[in-house]
Amino acid sequence: MPRIAYVNGRYVAHREAAVHVEDRGLQFADAVYEVCEVRGGRLIDEHRHMARLDRSLGELRIRPPMTSAALGVVLREVVRRNRVIEGIVYLQVTRGVAPRDHGFPAAAVRPGVIVTARAMPLAPRDARAKRGVSVITVADNRWQRVDIKTTGLLPNVLAKEKARAASAFEAWFVDEDGYVTEGTSTNAWIVTTDGAVVTAPTDRGILSGITRAVLLDVLRRRDLRLEERRFALAEARGAREAFLTSATTAVTPIVRIDGRAVADGRPGRVASELRQALREAAEVAPAWSGPRNPGRSDI
Amino acid sequence: MPRIAYVNGRYVAHREAAVHVEDRGLQFADAVYEVCEVRGGRLIDEHRHMARLDRSLGELRIRPPMTSAALGVVLREVVRRNRVIEGIVYLQVTRGVAPRDHGFPAAAVRPGVIVTARAMPLAPRDARAKRGVSVITVADNRWQRVDIKTTGLLPNVLAKEKARAASAFEAWFVDEDGYVTEGTSTNAWIVTTDGAVVTAPTDRGILSGITRAVLLDVLRRRDLRLEERRFALAEARGAREAFLTSATTAVTPIVRIDGRAVADGRPGRVASELRQALREAAEVAPAWSGPRNPGRSDI
Repeated sequence: MPRIAYVNGRYVAHREAAVHVEDRGLQFADAVYEVCEVRGGRLIDEHRHMARLDRSLGELRIRPPMTSAALGVVLREVVRRNRVIEGIVYLQVTRGVAPRDHGFPAAAVRPGVIVTARAMPLAPRDARAKRGVSVITVADNRWQRVDIKTTGLLPNVLAKEKARAASAFEAWFVDEDGYVTEGTSTNAWIVTTDGAVVTAPTDRGILSGITRAVLLDVLRRRDLRLEERRFALAEARGAREAFLTSATTAVTPIVRIDGRAVADGRPGRVASELRQALREAAEVAPAWSGPRNPGRSDI
Repeated sequence: MPRIAYVNGRYVAHREAAVHVEDRGLQFADAVYEVCEVRGGRLIDEHRHMARLDRSLGELRIRPPMTSAALGVVLREVVRRNRVIEGIVYLQVTRGVAPRDHGFPAAAVRPGVIVTARAMPLAPRDARAKRGVSVITVADNRWQRVDIKTTGLLPNVLAKEKARAASAFEAWFVDEDGYVTEGTSTNAWIVTTDGAVVTAPTDRGILSGITRAVLLDVLRRRDLRLEERRFALAEARGAREAFLTSATTAVTPIVRIDGRAVADGRPGRVASELRQALREAAEVAPAWSGPRNPGRSDI
């Protein structure tokens, strides 16, 4: 079955899915994105992702290319056409195509929209969470607006590659004061020796993760102490547990930081329980349903 | 005459010049670029641009897509096919196309190469320099590796747009200590009240501009005091002259900073002289010559 992508109003064969070389996403990283998990063929937490996309677009003054509802239809249609049951759908919105010039193009320029989907079986991800993962740490050298989910991801790319070279799964950014901000594509959490679950606040220096937000809701409903505050790398090293969250990793325990075991070096009980609780708490969208796609189809 | 672009080995109609949606330049800003001036149909300072490109690629460990000599042939061929006499040629190299994953793709993935050219008559640019331009200032919120000429330009885009909204030509980034680092696409200079020509050093926080480097050579050969050091915004406001440099602006006098006149609010004598001296000093490549293009032609 050929893969299908949605690009600027058309469903096209994935191998032919292309954007113009003067798309501002390519020339300026003038673009934002979302990655939504697909489980049982359904979008997870679609409304939260759409709300965050709206915020990102608003911060950059990129015109929303269509309503959230219409975008949702496109996302589901791409999932459906690719027969994705467990996997992800990727959505990118750019400021559109215009002759290269740093300032914004004319208001009439249409934002670009790209949607792709791919299978990513859950079982290996569950197995990885059972084993736990390693993280390394790198200096947080990113720009100051990482709260906007832009495609300006090169610092994240370089950090992730460094993690891979160290046989680690993720890299944690550490700011100049020694605080862990977040991972390259995940939020960072610890469970302190006295049992508090801690993650950095979103007021500056991190992206407001969707899975992070859902997990906060879960925590508020449970008998667990929650602290939204900065935590230093030193505190993480001495923590009882550490874990990371994202759409594709859900809650995944961290067992090593910079090569040193966290506690006894095995996935923590709290993280493992929260992984299960998160799965039950996610908002699940209707599967492959609703009005049919608003774009023109070439397939 | 239809415009022609070069994309990944082929000369194609500009309107059809496209890259795959999973090009890492589009999804991660995992790409670098150069903009080279064309004058009399010839590339200006080609070798310095190629050397900087090599450095950018090396810093990011992107494999050079071809030799600098071969790239130069492509640049000249694109200039020739578009009949550009006065204008620019734009070169972008990406890490290539691969399924989305932050870490580097397999070494076999071929880097992407995009070259476009366009006319940009000199007369209006000369007229603009005669009038002088305005700059505004914005907080420098960029990542710490702006010495690499990456396409992660969103902070520059936002700052340039802010300048435009204020009817200014450029925005200067000012760091948290109050020092002017550089403009969004230009280097920043002042002439002090005692006649020294000052620009920030390249050791951190700025891109090593090609026009900046050529001008430094010019200054070293002339009877002018040169100081490569940081300068504060306050010093710039009280300077005798201010100006900016880049491939497309050459030396362009600044007459207003944040709406306040620099000295008497007219282009300075030193800047105006340096604009002329720079023009004479640039290294000019052969026009539309050398071996023919190494890529396959579809035109």
